[in-house]
Amino acid sequence: MGGEMMEEEKEPEKEVNGSEIFKEFKEYSVVEFFKKNRQMLGFAGKVRSLTTIVHEYCTNALDATEEAHILPEIMVKVEELPDEHVKVTIQDNGPGIPPSHLGKAMGMMLAGTKFHRYMQQRGQQGIGGAGCTLFSQITTGKPTRMRSGLGDGKVYECDMKIDVKNNQPVITNQIEFMGNFRGLRVEAEFAEVKYDKSEHGVYEYLKRTAMANPHAQITLIEPTGEKHVFQRVSDRIPEKPAEIQPHPLGITTGDLVDMAHRTDSRKLSSFLTNTFSRMSSAKVEELAKLVPTVNFEKHPRDLKWPEAEAVVNSVKTLKWIAPPTDALRPIGSDQIDKALKNILAPEFVSVSERRPKVFRGGIPFMVEAAIAYGGNSGRARSDEGRGGDIIRYANRVPLMFDGGSCAITEAVKNIDWKRYDVRDFDKEPVTVFANFVSVHVPYTGTGKQAITMEEEIVGEIRYAIMEVARDMQVYLRGKVREMDKETKKKIIMRYVKELSADLADLAGTGAPADIEKKLVNMIETKYEKIEGEAEEAVEEVKEVEENEKEE
Amino acid sequence: MGGEMMEEEKEPEKEVNGSEIFKEFKEYSVVEFFKKNRQMLGFAGKVRSLTTIVHEYCTNALDATEEAHILPEIMVKVEELPDEHVKVTIQDNGPGIPPSHLGKAMGMMLAGTKFHRYMQQRGQQGIGGAGCTLFSQITTGKPTRMRSGLGDGKVYECDMKIDVKNNQPVITNQIEFMGNFRGLRVEAEFAEVKYDKSEHGVYEYLKRTAMANPHAQITLIEPTGEKHVFQRVSDRIPEKPAEIQPHPLGITTGDLVDMAHRTDSRKLSSFLTNTFSRMSSAKVEELAKLVPTVNFEKHPRDLKWPEAEAVVNSVKTLKWIAPPTDALRPIGSDQIDKALKNILAPEFVSVSERRPKVFRGGIPFMVEAAIAYGGNSGRARSDEGRGGDIIRYANRVPLMFDGGSCAITEAVKNIDWKRYDVRDFDKEPVTVFANFVSVHVPYTGTGKQAITMEEEIVGEIRYAIMEVARDMQVYLRGKVREMDKETKKKIIMRYVKELSADLADLAGTGAPADIEKKLVNMIETKYEKIEGEAEEAVEEVKEVEENEKEE
Repeated sequence: MGGEMMEEEKEPEKEVNGSEIFKEFKEYSVVEFFKKNRQMLGFAGKVRSLTTIVHEYCTNALDATEEAHILPEIMVKVEELPDEHVKVTIQDNGPGIPPSHLGKAMGMMLAGTKFHRYMQQRGQQGIGGAGCTLFSQITTGKPTRMRSGLGDGKVYECDMKIDVKNNQPVITNQIEFMGNFRGLRVEAEFAEVKYDKSEHGVYEYLKRTAMANPHAQITLIEPTGEKHVFQRVSDRIPEKPAEIQPHPLGITTGDLVDMAHRTDSRKLSSFLTNTFSRMSSAKVEELAKLVPTVNFEKHPRDLKWPEAEAVVNSVKTLKWIAPPTDALRPIGSDQIDKALKNILAPEFVSVSERRPKVFRGGIPFMVEAAIAYGGNSGRARSDEGRGGDIIRYANRVPLMFDGGSCAITEAVKNIDWKRYDVRDFDKEPVTVFANFVSVHVPYTGTGKQAITMEEEIVGEIRYAIMEVARDMQVYLRGKVREMDKETKKKIIMRYVKELSADLADLAGTGAPADIEKKLVNMIETKYEKIEGEAEEAVEEVKEVEENEKEE
Repeated sequence: MGGEMMEEEKEPEKEVNGSEIFKEFKEYSVVEFFKKNRQMLGFAGKVRSLTTIVHEYCTNALDATEEAHILPEIMVKVEELPDEHVKVTIQDNGPGIPPSHLGKAMGMMLAGTKFHRYMQQRGQQGIGGAGCTLFSQITTGKPTRMRSGLGDGKVYECDMKIDVKNNQPVITNQIEFMGNFRGLRVEAEFAEVKYDKSEHGVYEYLKRTAMANPHAQITLIEPTGEKHVFQRVSDRIPEKPAEIQPHPLGITTGDLVDMAHRTDSRKLSSFLTNTFSRMSSAKVEELAKLVPTVNFEKHPRDLKWPEAEAVVNSVKTLKWIAPPTDALRPIGSDQIDKALKNILAPEFVSVSERRPKVFRGGIPFMVEAAIAYGGNSGRARSDEGRGGDIIRYANRVPLMFDGGSCAITEAVKNIDWKRYDVRDFDKEPVTVFANFVSVHVPYTGTGKQAITMEEEIVGEIRYAIMEVARDMQVYLRGKVREMDKETKKKIIMRYVKELSADLADLAGTGAPADIEKKLVNMIETKYEKIEGEAEEAVEEVKEVEENEKEE
């Protein structure tokens, strides 16, 4: 890059051959790639970058505590430093990370345990923690300070950086000391980030994380020093997500080839029965008949692409029992109910009870939906009113961005809200909550912030929301009925007052007050019984008035 | 993955310690990462995936021919195969790729020449070609067939795949033979793609590429066999993009540290003057005074982060001459004019003439805008009319997706089109063309399909479009005047006909036809002179009529 003159020399243009162009060919590391393309990691824009940092660490904390069957306690502290730098501290009470693995977990990209697992999971594949270490490093030059305790009486600390060229951790200033700390504590400084209380910011992210994880206690200390605690409202630790077997209908040729070449099984037939759910020996025999050119006794690593393609195509022609759906870990309706009440203090809440479904022929999924009305439901509008809010989740992780591309948003848009007595969704204090749970979430883009608008998915989300919208409608109608009753009562009382005065006058007897009392009694008694009679009472009063007029 | 039982064993949950969780820690290659996250490479959705494939190969072809100063000839053939597979063949007349480099160029990710260069460029950093090889491989299992000729009488062919685990090319079936072929020819088969003639498809992509590259001849052979040739309309090969020196104001601390650690210069002072534009020795002295703790005689590789940060902050406080902008390679207004006329056959075209600007303090950029009206301008609407179309480019590459997030779209939205006699942009046959040219394009996301809506950028695009919109307005007003004239003429003629008949009747003399003739003559003569008189003529005719009535 150095040494070039400022003025360009104007040489006559001549054709250049290929060899000269390729003199400068080099290979670059994946870290250099993400350094140049950090938006791929979610570091796009100052507010979003900070939310991404908190998201990565929290996701790791929740996964780790869940896997170790611990009730999570997570502390997030954000401090504003000079030069528009921000320091983020996150601490959890999880199982900690063994010192020998800390480098790989937080100082190396594309290293992790979750890459090939077919299970419901929150975390990215070996990007998250290391991505934050990288982002801190490239914006401030500083390492990330880490403290890890396994609960065995020893506590380990170190400074972590990434060797960008070689994708290796660089660990310095290591110390070990005696202590009771169990969990992980991370302190890192960042530039090009911004703390904001908008709907894309850290506070909103943690609030939504709390809503989906009622068993977690999350504390946020803001730059002002203000402390918010999202209380735990449930002691029920969610079951660990189980790794399940993929269903034959959900598999692509490429996946089948990959899995066959990786398996421990020694025969193609046993590879199939061992790997796939609902794949019995009988089913394998059926398949073998449809693809007689394939030898099902041979070693799976000898499976050729055209053979795999033939198997996949034959699978599509057979009937299969639906996949087991018990590997899905929804939040649970009573948990959602507790959480929404805790966070939104609404007038009304309803949570759906949907059964698992499949999409693309064989991938199990489930939708949990809820609707909250009134209280702190909905979001604040610029004109001081409250409008409809949609809070989206995939596998209990809040989706904060790219709402416009998400299946959940699409489902809400496709509902005729007027049918549910919501004249204008954007002007009512309503919160729609939806959580999409699956072993495979079809995200739209790199940031994993939106679920692809596949028909089967949008459809099921829509039905789930409509289910709870109906409950809300019943509630709203009751409210309106109450309001109507009140209004009618007021109208009648107005007549009653005037009428009593006139009646008293007419009759020449009894204080208006007495007559009023009697009329009121009469009306109220009627009112307690049937609404129709109240209307009649209004009619009667009117009639009396009319008759009076005619006289 | 194999060997798991279908039913989950329900063990009592117990806390698990960290060491057990990390047993399964593994490292994964960047290719495996992109295999799982192919949407990051643009392979998201069937139509978009195919457009991405064509885009990657075409971009390489245009860059290569340009660098070698050759007038590009590119042939793209798309064939539909059984099983919904698609075969793509792309051939160019560029300089070819030396056989020794073919593997690195097309069979390895993150290898290339352009990674660290600060210049206007189309291509991705070592992803494009290899990404296509990977996508073909994972959807069909097949290699990509490549043919390369350097124009030295020898032609080389091979099958190319990627070793996913090790990110290395796997080359088989190599042959070399005598021949005149110079360029690159690629044949690859894909699944999970779709050929579509919609606005996101290959045809539209190539049409837009032709519009921005009038020196290129592009041939498309569609699955139907139909052949389209986007003719070359200019023999002017664009100048090679030059690598320029970055401007001090555009640099971040991280970049400065990186560059200092990579430079051949031996002193910090000479590193600065050699690397940055507008950085004279005098300027270096000014900086040295502002950061006296930094030793400007020391070796650049000893530059510490806090020192770099101090230098960057001091740079911001000094005055700098604007960066040179001659490294920018716009398409050129006469070129755009030719291209738009060729492709859209419009009634009217105007192209802007804007000067280069800078954003973020020091990054040079330029906007070329054009507007076309009538003919095939605009896009077809569902109701058979034509509506406004926006075609976006960054460094001459069509931006096909994510329009909603793009600075160009935002600029168009922010224009009050009524002022330019376009009542409803979505209902007029208008095409707005905008090309954003820079050494650094701030893309919004991973797909590099939208330009971040930075104020300075949106502002300049807006002004450029307004400049040509004004020209269009003059044209439209002229049109309307013509139309008005015609309309008025028609009205008058209607009166004239009736009038002549009546006059003839009244006077009892002369055939109505003669009188009509005389009247017409009279009016037409007047009409040629001043429009106002025509109106008077209308008035006169009316008056006669009225007088007649009163009688």
